[in-house]
Amino acid sequence: MRVDVIDIDDPGDPRVDDFRDLNSVDRRPDVPALPGGRVGKGLVIAEGVLVVQRMIASRFTPHAFLGVDKRLRELADDLMDPSIQGAPFFRASAEVMAEIVGFHLNRGVLGAARRPSVLSVAEVIDHARTIAILEGVNDHENIGSIFRNAAGLGVDAVLFGAGCADPLYRRCVRVSMGHALLVPSARFDNWPWDLALLRDNDFRLVSLTPGPGSVPLAQAVDAAKVAFLVGAEGPGLSETAMRASDVRARIPMSRGTDSLNVATAAAIAFYERVRSGTMDA
Amino acid sequence: MRVDVIDIDDPGDPRVDDFRDLNSVDRRPDVPALPGGRVGKGLVIAEGVLVVQRMIASRFTPHAFLGVDKRLRELADDLMDPSIQGAPFFRASAEVMAEIVGFHLNRGVLGAARRPSVLSVAEVIDHARTIAILEGVNDHENIGSIFRNAAGLGVDAVLFGAGCADPLYRRCVRVSMGHALLVPSARFDNWPWDLALLRDNDFRLVSLTPGPGSVPLAQAVDAAKVAFLVGAEGPGLSETAMRASDVRARIPMSRGTDSLNVATAAAIAFYERVRSGTMDA
Repeated sequence: MRVDVIDIDDPGDPRVDDFRDLNSVDRRPDVPALPGGRVGKGLVIAEGVLVVQRMIASRFTPHAFLGVDKRLRELADDLMDPSIQGAPFFRASAEVMAEIVGFHLNRGVLGAARRPSVLSVAEVIDHARTIAILEGVNDHENIGSIFRNAAGLGVDAVLFGAGCADPLYRRCVRVSMGHALLVPSARFDNWPWDLALLRDNDFRLVSLTPGPGSVPLAQAVDAAKVAFLVGAEGPGLSETAMRASDVRARIPMSRGTDSLNVATAAAIAFYERVRSGTMDA
Repeated sequence: MRVDVIDIDDPGDPRVDDFRDLNSVDRRPDVPALPGGRVGKGLVIAEGVLVVQRMIASRFTPHAFLGVDKRLRELADDLMDPSIQGAPFFRASAEVMAEIVGFHLNRGVLGAARRPSVLSVAEVIDHARTIAILEGVNDHENIGSIFRNAAGLGVDAVLFGAGCADPLYRRCVRVSMGHALLVPSARFDNWPWDLALLRDNDFRLVSLTPGPGSVPLAQAVDAAKVAFLVGAEGPGLSETAMRASDVRARIPMSRGTDSLNVATAAAIAFYERVRSGTMDA
């Protein structure tokens, strides 16, 4: 095995500080760092065997693991991966682990990675055919679900406009089943003006909205390259973002009901691309 | 106003017992009652203005409310509804309310209803064109999301096979945005044999499964009446249930990804009925 297994008996051991107080709002290790090294450590935390496996396969290369012996054995093959050579596996009892992370962790294993340099919008849209663009989506579970749905339904990238939560927060990574680490993503520097970059690259910009002037979704996806814009439940997309798009599309809804959850609406849009066969056009 | 407003200053006041300890596993008032009156009170609890409004509009007629003054004012018109004549509105401060229910309740208002007599499968499928049938779905949030998606996408009823959680638990009602009280639902007495009742009523039974022998979803929904069978994430539908269906249908997925969340998969199936125009066939 390429990882070093190190037994941890003392919950206060500073070697496991990267896994400490995971539920703490300000001390958790995955609070993003600001320029100059201020605020958080800016780590990314994967939890559970499946998500740790996907972290190892991603560009978020883990530098350390913490887990119980059972999970160490389940990950034996994955821990042979050359990319993580020398990364320590801190082995602890479930009780010691609970004291370190601050709660009982059912999944029994964690991986920690430093954030690599961010990707640019230009990098992630290169060769992409279908993209999701989020505006104002500040719920980690919704962002995680969107990554999961994107991976499952063949979407090539997820882009973040203004007002979105951190897509690398532990809960988001977990809900995404690790796909937040695998599906390429980037943030717009200048929202929404940088949407022009997508139009310059022949993307059709499709705003998902139940509002006036929208066409049924199935009429909007017939283009070689499509970018779906989705906004948060409640406020939806800003009028500015919708004006910057090429077409407004709606999911046909029953009268007297609310809009769908944003991740569900995105999944239906992704499905429509797959179903209509336009994804590979 | 038809409701009586009663101010509650003492959190121990027995008149608000129907709202007490909402997070308690065994004492919460919405634990189902068993025959003979054993176990729970079997109430249904709605929380938040929107869900309380939908409860008033449903057959789950509330017999009492608990809320802060602000929510009382917001509900003033709804509380004029003749169906709830004489139901008391217990008005309390946010602090007293928190002591009663056991936690701080952001939404600020609750309604409590006794469970009316259950509907039969035969009753809820009468006049229905599209139905969702759940097997082994034991996650309250997933069930709530399925009700919300059913309401939004024109599904007429939700039926429960073996192994499903209580669809009238508070969290389920909340996640459903109250549609768990409005979309007709029923439980099968003899699962899966009672599926014959649907076939006798000319429903095509479509099992959603990524497994072998499945056709693309879009090829499976072209019938006047369709019932979609969905199973829990992970185990999926039982082989017995799938054998009892007419066709197995899959949502086209990318290789190397997991199946979609069950509520998301159901939403895509419902959407396919709407999109293809077969819902009104």
